[in-house]
Amino acid sequence: MYNIPALNKQIGNEVSSYIDQLTKPAGSLGRLEQLAIALAEMTEAHFPVVTPPGVLVFAADHGVTKEGVSAFPQEVTAQMVLNFVNGGAAINVFSEQIGASFAVIDVGVATDIPGEGFVQKKVKYGTNNFCEQEAMTRDEANQAVTAGYEQAKAMIQQGIRCLIVGEMGIGNTTTASALLAAISNKSVELLVGKGTGIAEETVLHKRTVIERALALHQPDASDPIGLLSKIGGLEIAAMAGAMIAAAEVRVPILLDGFICTVAALVAERLHPRVVDYMIAGHRSQEPGHRVALELLGKEPLIDLKMRLGEGSGAAVAFPILQSAVTMLKMATFASAQVSQGGE
Amino acid sequence: MYNIPALNKQIGNEVSSYIDQLTKPAGSLGRLEQLAIALAEMTEAHFPVVTPPGVLVFAADHGVTKEGVSAFPQEVTAQMVLNFVNGGAAINVFSEQIGASFAVIDVGVATDIPGEGFVQKKVKYGTNNFCEQEAMTRDEANQAVTAGYEQAKAMIQQGIRCLIVGEMGIGNTTTASALLAAISNKSVELLVGKGTGIAEETVLHKRTVIERALALHQPDASDPIGLLSKIGGLEIAAMAGAMIAAAEVRVPILLDGFICTVAALVAERLHPRVVDYMIAGHRSQEPGHRVALELLGKEPLIDLKMRLGEGSGAAVAFPILQSAVTMLKMATFASAQVSQGGE
Repeated sequence: MYNIPALNKQIGNEVSSYIDQLTKPAGSLGRLEQLAIALAEMTEAHFPVVTPPGVLVFAADHGVTKEGVSAFPQEVTAQMVLNFVNGGAAINVFSEQIGASFAVIDVGVATDIPGEGFVQKKVKYGTNNFCEQEAMTRDEANQAVTAGYEQAKAMIQQGIRCLIVGEMGIGNTTTASALLAAISNKSVELLVGKGTGIAEETVLHKRTVIERALALHQPDASDPIGLLSKIGGLEIAAMAGAMIAAAEVRVPILLDGFICTVAALVAERLHPRVVDYMIAGHRSQEPGHRVALELLGKEPLIDLKMRLGEGSGAAVAFPILQSAVTMLKMATFASAQVSQGGE
Repeated sequence: MYNIPALNKQIGNEVSSYIDQLTKPAGSLGRLEQLAIALAEMTEAHFPVVTPPGVLVFAADHGVTKEGVSAFPQEVTAQMVLNFVNGGAAINVFSEQIGASFAVIDVGVATDIPGEGFVQKKVKYGTNNFCEQEAMTRDEANQAVTAGYEQAKAMIQQGIRCLIVGEMGIGNTTTASALLAAISNKSVELLVGKGTGIAEETVLHKRTVIERALALHQPDASDPIGLLSKIGGLEIAAMAGAMIAAAEVRVPILLDGFICTVAALVAERLHPRVVDYMIAGHRSQEPGHRVALELLGKEPLIDLKMRLGEGSGAAVAFPILQSAVTMLKMATFASAQVSQGGE
């Protein structure tokens, strides 16, 4: 169904040799060197380009908020969509900083959102409460994945060279934690923290809610559409679809925090090779993020104790990708007539 | 002699309250929030500005290279100055990325450098080998500090809003390690690593060289000019002077790696309040950097396993300062009509 090309390791090797000729001690730019090589392998370019980046923010609601798992009321999802439209959210100001194309997509907000300036791809008015029934049908899960896939394809056709996928959905750390518990087979206690800011008592309640959902649905970790339909979220499905679309055309994906990394694990189950096109942007404060990153085999670029979502951590990390490709513009020892060192 | 104002804690408190009104869960932007507050306290602005940044790279040679402590021959210092002039070094491409003003200053390269495009402030043709005699006179140390101070003042007058201070000097990790040993009173073994890339055997030799110098000069850690003259470097003296100049006029200083952080410790001994205007950019791979950062009480923004110097780590970290001040452009809960969460 999906068609993701292999990394071009040959170009990676060539870029690696070239980096050793640049006017600096070998290896002294650390992870920037590894990043440049990885970007070359992804994009099949000796001088990879990552600008302009594109930011897609998928918004949806979560029936599980009925269980009282979030610090914010559900209406905030729709309010924040308007905030995105008006340029007032964190991801807006960071997108502007990095010169990113930006779009917000309603794939499942619980109410009709007035006005324009966002993409209307609502699959459903929020998921069902997965403590009581399946979050959505398999068909709805597929629709949400496709919505994300198509949005990413459209933005890539407009010329973006790196994809950041963000989300807005009150209650979605609970959903992502449920997905991660099913995928990782780790205890809910290990994975569930305070989200965007809830009290210790609520953390315990959140864990119980997730355990009830897992007991009810017994999700199969190898079936991504089954995971999404039983205990997933519409924006998480769309994020996974968007990642697949980027990888299909060799566009690097810069991951955000916890929700995004769980969406990446779902995407991996849609097509394992998508992971080759992912770079972890930042380490979130959410405890499950560490587990999700380990499962994905990725080490984040920054750790600034952020836990906001929206794609904000990835956007703040993006200039490091720019530095990695900018490094390749340096002079070589030969061109600059600088003596090369030895051990 | 120097006059560094106190931080404006009142404005810091006001900015802190304002950040809690922005449309995001309280505290969810982590260190960006603390950075914005710190920058407000430094600059006395509710909406601090850090662009354009300025990069000053001070170049000088080290007599101690005669002892065979570096992987590169001494001539590389002069060659790299020409590389800086021609825009081919790492700090050039990163400076361009962040839109920085850039200048390279010869404060003590061992040879005359042909051509133009750099600032000529040579105090001395390299330091003396501090294993045999004092690196420079007290008068020369003062001249080098003043050269750095004046260069920073000049660049600030041209409008830069954040100062990055870099260096080039073959052998200067040995010099910086000697200074750090004297300042920290820690064992040389703990502080000295492989610099820009030397073999294990050379590491052991480097330690012996430093121990000899410390035994010969018995430097007094409370006397910064004495430290510089006995076991210092001309570029390190200039860097310390540049930092003082920035702090005097409330310009934030973004620190680079090991050499720069040791220069910061010297600056602290010239005027303790200069530290209030410093932000640690990155964590270098050089083992002594951890010790230097701890003494300074600073936690770096990024850790990308870099160990190049030149100001490169600070330049790569700079966009995070931009993100911190950009954050303050976000909408408030009231202005965006978003419901505020509670515990």
